[in-house]
Amino acid sequence: MTVEQQYLLLPGPTPVPASVLRAMNKPMINHRGPEFRELMAEVTDGVKKIYQTKNDLVIFPAAGTGAMEAAIVNFISPGDKVLAISIGVFGDRFAKIAAEFGADVQKLDFPWGQQADPDVVSNVISRDKEKRIKAVLVTHNETSTGVVNDIKAISESIGDHPAIIIVDAVSGLGAMELPTDEWGLDVVVSGSQKAFMLPPGLSFMSVSPRALETSKNCKNHKYYWDLESALKYLQKGQTPYTPALSLFFGLQEALRLLLEEGLDNVIKRHRYCRDLVRAGIKAMGLTPMADDAIASCSLTSVLAPEGIGANTIRRMLWERFEVVVAGGQQRLDDVIFRIGHLGFVRPLDLLASLAALEIVLYENGFPIKIGEGITKVQELFIKKEEA
Amino acid sequence: MTVEQQYLLLPGPTPVPASVLRAMNKPMINHRGPEFRELMAEVTDGVKKIYQTKNDLVIFPAAGTGAMEAAIVNFISPGDKVLAISIGVFGDRFAKIAAEFGADVQKLDFPWGQQADPDVVSNVISRDKEKRIKAVLVTHNETSTGVVNDIKAISESIGDHPAIIIVDAVSGLGAMELPTDEWGLDVVVSGSQKAFMLPPGLSFMSVSPRALETSKNCKNHKYYWDLESALKYLQKGQTPYTPALSLFFGLQEALRLLLEEGLDNVIKRHRYCRDLVRAGIKAMGLTPMADDAIASCSLTSVLAPEGIGANTIRRMLWERFEVVVAGGQQRLDDVIFRIGHLGFVRPLDLLASLAALEIVLYENGFPIKIGEGITKVQELFIKKEEA
Repeated sequence: MTVEQQYLLLPGPTPVPASVLRAMNKPMINHRGPEFRELMAEVTDGVKKIYQTKNDLVIFPAAGTGAMEAAIVNFISPGDKVLAISIGVFGDRFAKIAAEFGADVQKLDFPWGQQADPDVVSNVISRDKEKRIKAVLVTHNETSTGVVNDIKAISESIGDHPAIIIVDAVSGLGAMELPTDEWGLDVVVSGSQKAFMLPPGLSFMSVSPRALETSKNCKNHKYYWDLESALKYLQKGQTPYTPALSLFFGLQEALRLLLEEGLDNVIKRHRYCRDLVRAGIKAMGLTPMADDAIASCSLTSVLAPEGIGANTIRRMLWERFEVVVAGGQQRLDDVIFRIGHLGFVRPLDLLASLAALEIVLYENGFPIKIGEGITKVQELFIKKEEA
Repeated sequence: MTVEQQYLLLPGPTPVPASVLRAMNKPMINHRGPEFRELMAEVTDGVKKIYQTKNDLVIFPAAGTGAMEAAIVNFISPGDKVLAISIGVFGDRFAKIAAEFGADVQKLDFPWGQQADPDVVSNVISRDKEKRIKAVLVTHNETSTGVVNDIKAISESIGDHPAIIIVDAVSGLGAMELPTDEWGLDVVVSGSQKAFMLPPGLSFMSVSPRALETSKNCKNHKYYWDLESALKYLQKGQTPYTPALSLFFGLQEALRLLLEEGLDNVIKRHRYCRDLVRAGIKAMGLTPMADDAIASCSLTSVLAPEGIGANTIRRMLWERFEVVVAGGQQRLDDVIFRIGHLGFVRPLDLLASLAALEIVLYENGFPIKIGEGITKVQELFIKKEEA
């Protein structure tokens, strides 16, 4: 029987709750009418709560990468110097977008699998005596490696240098702490198909007053991503062009679920799922790519064992168990596989998927005792209750 | 977060595949029009394939109990003698319905947890020299205990006695072998919310030519359940009164899935799920109510261990893990719990739910080693592949 229900453990798209799917299944409404005006106000307010911000926030009908582009073309003019911190594929992508739109990109690379070092950032910033750096680009959660950056420390490392900080929090927001205002983050972008428990297709961008000032003098060409236009329409409860209505209906319901749970609990849930996965992985004798201290709560990258390709493991998980995990990107292809544990993922589904992984490893001749890893995961369920 | 997605392990309602839910979500059509005529022909033909019958088959917008009533009022007249075999709650129910409609019910009870003995049935039948018994009522799968009757042997035990055999296969059809024509079953009733993977609300009744003859002289009052009327309308591709259209849409898709899988594979899948559950239960040191040889492929009844009420186990499974299992009925309340494994239940969900059960038992002080039961289940996954 060909079925659609999978154990979808990707770092996005993530499973979507039934009530969100149902909410999306509503008839169209006039996106220039009063119902949409109310909906727009409600969801904008709700997303701001997840962002923990009082800044302006706009919603684009686009993938997260769209909001990343918006975060460049609205704040960086051709020739502007930009410090692009990268710890993996998505850090590289942010730097590439900036370069494409004429920025003078100074790339600051750290080894894949590690965090960006705030002291190094601080050093670079303090050596920019002429204040030529206009913006610092940084990834919150690096989805290619499963490492979370210390955004608070990086924000602090900029000190009183006038550069704005632009954070790609597409896969991290909602899964881990990121209080926009408290940490002084000027521009933060995120996407719907991650902790927001929605299908892909919406992305968000928050803008601090100081970033808004910067945008007014920005000379890059833009139409679809034009912040000024988006904010003008937002005042009327509209969008400059047709919004993705179904996703707005879904966002309303997803926000209802998330705010009912409470942001603290949402973040705790993600941490718990991460801990389950890491406990299981380690007990099986596998090695996560990221150390405990810097491990993402959105996903876990796992090094495939000697002699068994990561893609073989992925294929068997999929064919035999309908468990879907992501592969490694670029130079990590077939070297790692990535288990997403964000959004609407249930702890017991993670346990089941780890049991499947154990079976697949066993059948590939990996020296493993069936049940050992999964028992450790079960124990964590017990400990959680006792705590 | 309050969510709707559960590990629904009931002996019905069972989980419904996404494509079936979607199919049900269609706009209404005219139930006296050409589209419904086609739909009606298609689904009637499809259900017959699952029944393995060329007999007439009617569909009622009703629960399975409705079709049980239809199987009485169309074939049994007040005063008719009926042999009602019972091995549990649903055998009792069938006898009660017959008595309510004036039948002279001879009850043949077997201990709960055991099968009906075909030799005993044969004895009773052979002693009825005057051929007063008009019908034998029997349950295919006894949902209250998790025992499957040997319907083939019981059918044979009637021999050339003229009594018709009426089978309640509500929870068994599709999950276990029941070739209607090959086994000479005159009337077989079933329901949508079991192996058919649909929400509750439709039930089916097949009628052999000889049962059809009987129905023509039946003197019971009936309107909603009137077979003659249903068959007359079926000829026109209609129903005597308004059909449950959404469920018909769903039935069309569910049948497409089942027939694509193939009945043999559907039955194998159910047997595999049963074996997984029984392996896990036994490895945890728990006792299934039914012996291996008579164990249902639809559900497994499990005796709660000394000192831990079955309902405590159920409550904890639900509150902590959203795992839903059924309780014991009547005198079995708090004594057993029942794990459904029929319909659209995924093997890996069964593994996850058994892991949850293990944790719950552990936390209730049951002498158990965490991981032991679940490891046995994992091993069965491996063995399956090697076989």
